[in-house]
Order: sequence, then structure tokens, then C-alpha cells
Amino acid sequence: MFFASDNTSGATPEVMRALIRANDGYARGYGGDEITARVTAQLREVFDAPDAAVHLVATGTAANALALATHTQPWQAVFCHRHAHIAEDECGAPEFFTNGAKLALVDGPHGKMTPDTLAQALGTTGESGVHGVQRGILSITNVTEAGTVYTPSEISALTALAKSHGIPSHLDGARFANALVATGASPAQMTWQAGIDVVSFGGTKNGCLGAEAVVIFDPARDWEFQLRRKRAGHLISKNRYLAAQMEGYLTDGAWLHHAAHANAMGTLLADGLARLNSVHQRHPVQANMMFPEWAAGTHDRLKAAGAAYYPYLAPQGREAARLVTSWSTTSADVDHFLTAFQG
Amino acid sequence: MFFASDNTSGATPEVMRALIRANDGYARGYGGDEITARVTAQLREVFDAPDAAVHLVATGTAANALALATHTQPWQAVFCHRHAHIAEDECGAPEFFTNGAKLALVDGPHGKMTPDTLAQALGTTGESGVHGVQRGILSITNVTEAGTVYTPSEISALTALAKSHGIPSHLDGARFANALVATGASPAQMTWQAGIDVVSFGGTKNGCLGAEAVVIFDPARDWEFQLRRKRAGHLISKNRYLAAQMEGYLTDGAWLHHAAHANAMGTLLADGLARLNSVHQRHPVQANMMFPEWAAGTHDRLKAAGAAYYPYLAPQGREAARLVTSWSTTSADVDHFLTAFQG
Amino acid sequence: MFFASDNTSGATPEVMRALIRANDGYARGYGGDEITARVTAQLREVFDAPDAAVHLVATGTAANALALATHTQPWQAVFCHRHAHIAEDECGAPEFFTNGAKLALVDGPHGKMTPDTLAQALGTTGESGVHGVQRGILSITNVTEAGTVYTPSEISALTALAKSHGIPSHLDGARFANALVATGASPAQMTWQAGIDVVSFGGTKNGCLGAEAVVIFDPARDWEFQLRRKRAGHLISKNRYLAAQMEGYLTDGAWLHHAAHANAMGTLLADGLARLNSVHQRHPVQANMMFPEWAAGTHDRLKAAGAAYYPYLAPQGREAARLVTSWSTTSADVDHFLTAFQG
Amino acid sequence: MFFASDNTSGATPEVMRALIRANDGYARGYGGDEITARVTAQLREVFDAPDAAVHLVATGTAANALALATHTQPWQAVFCHRHAHIAEDECGAPEFFTNGAKLALVDGPHGKMTPDTLAQALGTTGESGVHGVQRGILSITNVTEAGTVYTPSEISALTALAKSHGIPSHLDGARFANALVATGASPAQMTWQAGIDVVSFGGTKNGCLGAEAVVIFDPARDWEFQLRRKRAGHLISKNRYLAAQMEGYLTDGAWLHHAAHANAMGTLLADGLARLNSVHQRHPVQANMMFPEWAAGTHDRLKAAGAAYYPYLAPQGREAARLVTSWSTTSADVDHFLTAFQG
Repeated sequence: MFFASDNTSGATPEVMRALIRANDGYARGYGGDEITARVTAQLREVFDAPDAAVHLVATGTAANALALATHTQPWQAVFCHRHAHIAEDECGAPEFFTNGAKLALVDGPHGKMTPDTLAQALGTTGESGVHGVQRGILSITNVTEAGTVYTPSEISALTALAKSHGIPSHLDGARFANALVATGASPAQMTWQAGIDVVSFGGTKNGCLGAEAVVIFDPARDWEFQLRRKRAGHLISKNRYLAAQMEGYLTDGAWLHHAAHANAMGTLLADGLARLNSVHQRHPVQANMMFPEWAAGTHDRLKAAGAAYYPYLAPQGREAARLVTSWSTTSADVDHFLTAFQG
Repeated sequence: MFFASDNTSGATPEVMRALIRANDGYARGYGGDEITARVTAQLREVFDAPDAAVHLVATGTAANALALATHTQPWQAVFCHRHAHIAEDECGAPEFFTNGAKLALVDGPHGKMTPDTLAQALGTTGESGVHGVQRGILSITNVTEAGTVYTPSEISALTALAKSHGIPSHLDGARFANALVATGASPAQMTWQAGIDVVSFGGTKNGCLGAEAVVIFDPARDWEFQLRRKRAGHLISKNRYLAAQMEGYLTDGAWLHHAAHANAMGTLLADGLARLNSVHQRHPVQANMMFPEWAAGTHDRLKAAGAAYYPYLAPQGREAARLVTSWSTTSADVDHFLTAFQG
Repeated sequence: MFFASDNTSGATPEVMRALIRANDGYARGYGGDEITARVTAQLREVFDAPDAAVHLVATGTAANALALATHTQPWQAVFCHRHAHIAEDECGAPEFFTNGAKLALVDGPHGKMTPDTLAQALGTTGESGVHGVQRGILSITNVTEAGTVYTPSEISALTALAKSHGIPSHLDGARFANALVATGASPAQMTWQAGIDVVSFGGTKNGCLGAEAVVIFDPARDWEFQLRRKRAGHLISKNRYLAAQMEGYLTDGAWLHHAAHANAMGTLLADGLARLNSVHQRHPVQANMMFPEWAAGTHDRLKAAGAAYYPYLAPQGREAARLVTSWSTTSADVDHFLTAFQG
Repeated sequence: MFFASDNTSGATPEVMRALIRANDGYARGYGGDEITARVTAQLREVFDAPDAAVHLVATGTAANALALATHTQPWQAVFCHRHAHIAEDECGAPEFFTNGAKLALVDGPHGKMTPDTLAQALGTTGESGVHGVQRGILSITNVTEAGTVYTPSEISALTALAKSHGIPSHLDGARFANALVATGASPAQMTWQAGIDVVSFGGTKNGCLGAEAVVIFDPARDWEFQLRRKRAGHLISKNRYLAAQMEGYLTDGAWLHHAAHANAMGTLLADGLARLNSVHQRHPVQANMMFPEWAAGTHDRLKAAGAAYYPYLAPQGREAARLVTSWSTTSADVDHFLTAFQG
């Protein structure tokens, strides 16, 4: 009953098989190998973006920070939701990689910026000449940190505002597959067709050991990205192992099946909780992550039954939690959890 | 016949087995797992340093840059050999991670600083008050980029100079195991007993997929290192896979056996070349890397036979190369190479 | 009728006289001159802080950014009011000088943080281990950007919260003299006796050409500050001219007389406006800066009469402005303005 | 007898007069004043560069570091002479402002790079793909730190090499006027006509209190420079005082007359020393700075007579010094020095 994070799950069988296969013989270092070439082509196809620059890194923080830095100057602002991962959970990595850009925190319910809140933030930045920082880039997270999902048209509405101020847009897709499955959108619909310029395409949470792709739709940015990646220590010498993970991840749509499963387990768990007295979800449950509140005392019961998850602050008499399902969550896990909940 | 780099080799069987074993079930993220705890203890034992801070990262550049940054201020100088990896092959990662420290390049034959050349560099830095950068840290590479090896007493002589100027010393041990085998020194003798304060302990070139440890002998630096690692995107969420590699690497001295093999293959190759007319080694061959010069025309013959390695610039009528052996080089590879050489 | 900013005023006669006097003969560069020595002693006396490190720079942004950087790590947060000068008007200088620290924006009415709003910001930062940035420093501006003033006891309440979280406190005193005059506090009462660790002591807005002092109460930070100043290009070679300005500024309490005059002119102007129909002050007027709202159409009338100031956004049918008085504002200027206002 | 540095001299009468004149009344801040507008036009005329971006800062280090940063990426190299001011005397300011670019130190006798030494440095940088830093910018100092002077054609030869590698060229003209006078070149001939893209035009050493201009011949870089200047705390709020200094400096060719005088005093001093037994100049004396060696014991004699200058290291039995003349050096100073020398 591990609901702490999708990164407590292991790697999928396809990924492990690809990794083992990749270990055969010699391969050129630093991405000059054949698997890297193949997976680059594959990702371009997935995104229907034949000219995109595609590169792999081992962590989501690296993917985000490198993507942002390649599109931002140090004297600019990165617009993101107040509770975005880049704002709260990366120990200032965006500031480090951009050499000191400022995060402009945008409000909005349930982890989502709205056209109104974004317009306000954009409107009050860069209006005082050299005295204030300039507008830099918009960063949208999908699935959000609140477990909610932007539709492509919601993304379009935000990126259109960014474009109207002359700045590009980034998508933090640490849970990209879960967002696709939740909306039925294609990768292209969710990204460049919705005005996104660069994507952090997550693999780790959905079944890789540690592999993320950065997809840059403007190939003119390619070389700068590569230099930044190397300079940040994120160019893996035996890159075939990163590439193999991603190849296994993508094979025969495995990534989407696993995400669909994770989301389905999320729905199963949310539905089960909804049937229980006194459970309240703080945010709409739209993918594989939820933030229920319940009566005090429940934590002890769940813990005793072996459930692992992060508790959250809650009002007097209540308790709260973050629960995340993953590709490896089973319906038995969910049943077990719900049973334990009821004591 | 792959002699291009030890990073064109795959992962050893022990490493792959450990990795596969690690994939079983759930594990806490970000290094909170049991394998990370075990391998931390193991590395402390390897270094006979029970209080050392020990952390894993995926690349040697990250290990070096984080180690240096944790011990250096932006207005200081990092003293290293003119041809050190940190100076020539990391695209300015030390400058990035230290927020702009300066590399003070020290001369010396065969890739090695000498007490004289280092003393001169130390003596001409930090002597002009606020106007010049201050002395920061000494960084020694072992095995050097020239394939030569420092003995512990040679390292002691250099670190003593650094200490006399009040600065700490770093060891870039991307090929640490090969240096140990070449000198017969223990990890402790090669490092803290020789005045080293922080080590980049390489695993990748000697048989991991991508795993390096940073060993910091002053535990007071631990927390800063961890913050820097996270901020640089080098804290792996599913850290168990990094830890498993390192555990497999260390098991039953496998790492030393593999390095001994790589060095033995280096000796075999060097001895074979020494018996050939006209081959000259630019540097003494002391580990698993060599820089032979030979008559022009040889490249074509070797290439035709399928040999892979990096050519180097050479005088008119000559050719030069870097040849690296690894844990997976076979004596048949060496024979094949020598046969092809003779045409 | 210049009410645009106190930096549109010139230099006071005392400052100009000291500057001219300083031009006599030769003087050692980089602060090794006698005027610098004298003014250092004088500032220590002003602050009743015989051990303080005292240094001069030419701009308030440099003073603030250097003061902050000397007390903050790149992975930390600087707590300041949402509308602080360091947050809105320095084009990211704090981020640049700190190598990427994050500004944590604290709310509060009339430009002032409150113990409640600060406690909340402090409480939600640095609580997630390596994942989030750590608490770094508190920065308080007095006079605030809203023209309001903190009393020493209000400052103490904020710095006590900072101290309870183990972090130091900075005072941005671009209008320090105006704050002293407004509260009747001494420099020591306003700073180290109220828990402040480092002060940007402004001279420019109150009558220098361009001279600010940084006063660091912990002399252990002195050398780092000096290296950072030099590295940022803020060590003036002919430092005697900076020092002379500050010496002229301080002579016989001239700085306090000028600030008292500026504040008095502020009061005169505010009182005059208060007698007019329909003028509303957005913030309490406590020093030499105010933010009145008035009926639409007033701007044109004032502009026609030659009044210079910054207009602000206002609701439909209204207009708003920032008006700043200075050492050189005359009561005739105020009368003229009020007359023009009434048309 | 002050020969320590040209920055121990005061400001010229023209500069002081302009400064005093500038103090009259109110002026818009941050360079929006009329004097700034006038001096911008004047500098464009001086350089025969009507489209150039022209901005003022208070120090040479700021001018250099901002000029370099505006033309360089963090992962690039700045090519400069091994003993350039930017390499040895700015505490790493170029590294700070560029966010970590690397200085590639070029050899050459008497403080001057040669086409050969520069070609070698350019040829060995940026040739290893992402692994090494890329070529960024060439920085030439004129007058050099050795007191020697590049002619325009020597500069052209160096910038042509830079251009052949696709990189721009910077001129550090802290003693620009002395170099012009020494060569008879015009500002345009010494800069853009010789392939220079950006100039640090020094005023301080030749008679300002602290004023340098940065002249950028490609106006497309203007806005970035302005943002960097503000962000670095180098935009002076009462900019009229910087501008007034520069206006006074330029008036009626005063700057060239003063530099001619300084150089003439240099020649007088060098000629006088040449007539003395045992004086050897380390470098050709071509402007207002020289590096004589003389017999041991001379320092004491000169010091007793009140001479101020920097001693340098010298071989056994010898002494060495740096002597700098300036706009305020008198022939009586020189006579006095030579008399004291002879004892």
C-alpha cells in the first residue's frame, strides 16, 4: 500500500528489459550511440515534431531547469503557479540554472493558473523599464501539483497570453502521460499545438528508473541546450542506458497503458473514498494524485495497516493526506487501503 | 576492439544483477531507501572513514563540480593541472557550480603537477588583496588525463602545499580504482591519509551504468552538499538504482578486480606496442590509458580492422592516438589490435 | 515643483564643498586615503558601533545587493515586503549578487510586513528538507516604498522572528535619515539595538551625488564583503570622492537637518492636500513620500503648471500619484503645487 | 612625487567645473537628464559612430565586466593576455558578470598578445564539441598592463583572428587616451575601424573622479547592456554627475591634452632614468607607465625623498618598480625623483 509517490514504484518490465538489452557490447558515449538515435526519432514521432531537438536527462528537476534556462535570461521572470514544483520543490534549481531569474508566482484554485491570474501577473511585470525584471517564460505543470489537469484548450488560453507578451511557454510534464490519458489529448495537441515551446517529458514517475526527455520545438535552441546540459553535469557518458529506458518506456504504447492504469487506480481509490463518511477531496481528482481530508484518527489506523503516504496539515479534528497511485498500484492495494480506512 | 574510452564499455554483471534485484517492490525516494543506507555504510568502510558524508550522483562532472563548489567561494581559485578534466572537458561546470570561481592552471609533465609548479601557482595567487581572486582549493586527478598515476606520497606533497596556504584538496577519482591498483594503495592511503578532503569516487568508467560517489571527510559540509546537489538537479528520485549500482560495484572487491584487469590489459597492449617498430609512448603507461605515436598510415590499417579509438594530432609523418582499456577488454582484443597494427 | 523623486534633487552645499576640498592633491586609491579612514570612524560613531565594518558604494542597489549577498547563500530565501525596492526596482540585483537566492514576498498593508505575515512566510519556507530553499535573511525597508515608517519596536518584533529561525536581518535605509527623523530614534536604536545585522545607509536621496554606506555589525563578514564589492566593480579607485561626499553629508548633523526639512515639506504638502476636496491618501504620510488619489483631470492642471511627479494607476474617474519631497523642496514649491491643484 | 598610479591623481579643473555646474537645480534620474543626452551625442561624435550605444559607469571594472558579459555566454571563453587587468586585478569580475565564463590566458612579450599566441589559444579552444567551453570574445588592453601600446594595425591583426573564429572583440581602454596619443590614432581608427566591437573608454585615470563610458558599436546590444547595468547596481540614480564628469573630460579636447602631458612626463622620466647607470626598463616605455629595474638600495633613497610608487619583485641585488605618470605630474616631480634617485 505505497501511496507516497509514484517515484516509490520501481521500473516497468519493458524498461528493465530494454536496459538489460542495452548492456550488450560497446557503444559510443555521450549520446553518440544507436539507441539514443532511435529514441530521438521515436520521440519526434510521438510529438509529431520532426524537427524538434530531443535530449535526455536523469531527473525532472534537470529537465525543467535546463528547459527554462535555455529560454530565459537572468534578468527575466518565469511565470508559474504559486505551488509549482519549480517554485517549491527544486531548491531553487531554476534560479541556479538561469543564473538568477525570478519566479513570478501566479495564483489560481486547485493548482491551476487561470487566464485572469496569469494576465494580472504578466501585466505587472516588465512595465518599469530597466528597473524591474523583464517577462521571460511561462511554465505550466500538467498534471498539476494539486492532481488536477489542464486541457489543451486551457493551455492554449494561457500560452496565448504569454505570446501576446512575446514570451515562450514551457510544460512541466513530470506526469505528462497521466495528463494525456486524463484528457484524451495527443502529445502534439497538449504541447506545440497548444502553444507550448518546450516540454519536460517525464518518464521516471511512470516507470523508468530515472529518465526524462526535453523536447524543444525550436531547433535553433538545440546547441545551447546541449552546452548547458554538459556544463550542468547532466550529459550522461553511457547515455545508452538513459536512452534504453526511454525506448522501453515508449515501446508499443506501454507508457500510455501504464498511465491509464495509474489513473484508473486513482479513480478507484477516489471513488472508494467518496463512499466513506466524512472524506472530502481538497481538489478535483483528475489523474493519479489526490488530497483527501478525513476525520482525525484515521492516520493511525491506516499506518497500522501498513499504508505509506504523506500526511498534510489539516484543521482541528481533521487529517489530510496526499495519495498517489502509479503504474504498479493494484486494485488489491486500493481495496486494502479502503478496508483499513474503515478499521 | 573498442579502445576509445572506458565509458564505451557496458556495465559489469555484478552491477546489472544488483540493479535488477533493486527493482523489486517499493522504496522511499531521494535516498531514503535501504540500499542507499547500506552503500553509504559500505563506502565509509572502504575509505575507513566512519564519519564521512557520502552521496551518489550519476556523472563524474557532477561529482567534481559539486565537490569543488562545496569547498570553494566564487572569488577563489581552483588549482589544477592545465589538462585536468575539470579544466578541459566539463564545459565550464566548475565555473557554473561555484558561481564563477577561476581555474588556476598548473603546469607539469605527463599530466602531473609537481610541488614546484604548484608552489609557483599558489605563490602568485591571492597576493594582491581584494584585487585578485583568493586561493580556494587544490584539485588532483588520479589516474591523470595523461594516463599517469600519482602515488600517495606525491599526493601528500601537493596537499601539504595547499594546507600551508590554508586551502583544502580534492581528488578527481574518475579512475580511482585503476589508480589504487596501479599503486597498491588503500582508499584511505590515497585520500585522507594523504591530505585529501573530498573525493570524486568514480564508478561509471569501471563498470557502472552511471554512478559516482562523493566522499566528504569533513561531515560539517554534508548539508551544504546535499542542498547543492538538489539545486543542481542531481538528487535522483529513485535513488535506489544509483545505490544498487554502487553496491554491485563494490561487492566482494569486484571493482578492484575489474580495475586490475583493465590495467593488466593496458600493460599487455603497451608491451605489445613496445615491441613494434616506431611506436613511441608520449607518457609513461601506468594504468589503463596510453598515448602512443606511430608511423603515418597506421590509422587506416587499424580502422580497416575495426579498431575504435581517438586519434590525436601528431607531427608530420606520424600519427598519434589515445587508447583506453577497460574491465571488458579481452586479451583477444589486444592481440587483434596488435595484429592489425602490423598489417 | 519637482516631486518625482528625491533623486532628482542635486547635492547639498556641504557635500559639494567636501567634494571640492577632497580634490586637492594626491590620495591613495581604493579606500586607502585619509578621508575614507575618517568617514569610517565617523559612521561607526554615528551608529555607536566601534567594531562595525563600514564600506562605501555609489548606489543603493549595490549597497542592498552586496549586503544581502554577504549574509545569504544561493539556496536561501530573502524575506521582504512584496513591494520592497529589492523586489521590484532592482532588476533582480539581489538574485544576481546572491547567485540565485529567492525572494520570499511578504504581504502587509501600507508597505509594511507585520509579525503575522512574516511569521507565516517564515513558517512555510525551509520545512521540506533539501527540496525547498532554506531561510536566509530578512530585509526591512525604512522608510518603506509606501512612504510609511517602521518604529524601532516594530523592527524588533520582526527581527526577533527572524532570529527565532536563526537568520539575520538587513535594513534597507535608502531613506534612513527620513525614518530617523520621523521616529526620533537614533541610528543605533533603529538598527543593531533593534536586531538589525547590516544596514544600507543611504546618502544619495538626501543630498549626496551618489554615496551609500554599508554598515555590517559583525566584523567577521568584513573581508567577504570587500571581495564581493571588488568583484562586482563597486570598489571605486578614487574612493576619496565617495568618502568626501559622506563626510560632507554627516558634518554637523547636516544629514538629519536635511531629512527633517524633507519630512516637514512632506507634512506641509500632505496637510495642504488634506484640506482639498476629494484627495485621499492611500497610505499614512509619515515621512517625505505620499501616494494621493484625486479627481480625474487634476494631472493636466498640475502638469500645465510645471509639476513633475509619477502618475499611478487609479480607478475610473480618479487619478493617483507619487509625490516625494526632498532636502531641496521649498515651501514655495508646495504652495505653488497646491495652488495649481486648485486650478 | 606620486608615481603609484594615475588613480592617485585628483580630477582635472574642467571636470570639477562641469560637476559643479551640473549641481544646479533638478534633473531626471537614471540617465534621463540633459547632460547625459549631450555627452552621449558627444561620445558618438568622438568615435565617429552615430549609432553606437553609449553608457556610463563609475568604475573600469564595471565597464569591462559589463561589456564582456553583454557579448559572452557563460559557457564561453574570454581570450586575453595572461596579465590583463581583467585576469589579474578584478577579483573575478568577468567571471561574476558573465555567470562563469572562462578566461583563456594568452602569452606574449611586454603585455601584448601576438597573432601567433592568439591563434594558438583560439585554435585549442572550442574544438571538442560540448565538452569544452566555446570561443566567446577577445579582450585587448590598450595601453597594456606593461605600459606598452598596440597600434591600430596590431589590433586589426588580432581582431581579424577573432572574427575568423566568429567572435567579437573588446578593447579595455582604461588608458585609452594615452594609447591614442602614443599612436596618433583616432578613436575610430583604434576601435571599430580596427575590428573592435565594444570599448571601455576610461576617464578616471586621466582626470575624472570616477567615470567610464562603454561604447557598443552594435546598437542591438543596447537594451541587454542596460538591463545588466541596472541589475549590477551600476545605473547611477543621479546620473547627471557621471555625465558631467565625462562632459568636462571631453570638452575642447582636454582629455587628449592631459593624456599627452602624462605621456610626455613618462618620456621625460624614462629619458632621465635612461641616463642613469644601471637602470633597465623591463618593457619599452610607450605611454605613461614604466617598469624600471635598478640597483638595490635605491628604494630607500627614493622613499626618504618622498617618492610614492609600487615596488616589484626583482633578482638578487636589484630592485624593481612600477612608475606611472598622470595629467597632474609636473616636470618638477620628475626632476625631484631623478635627483633623489642619484642621492
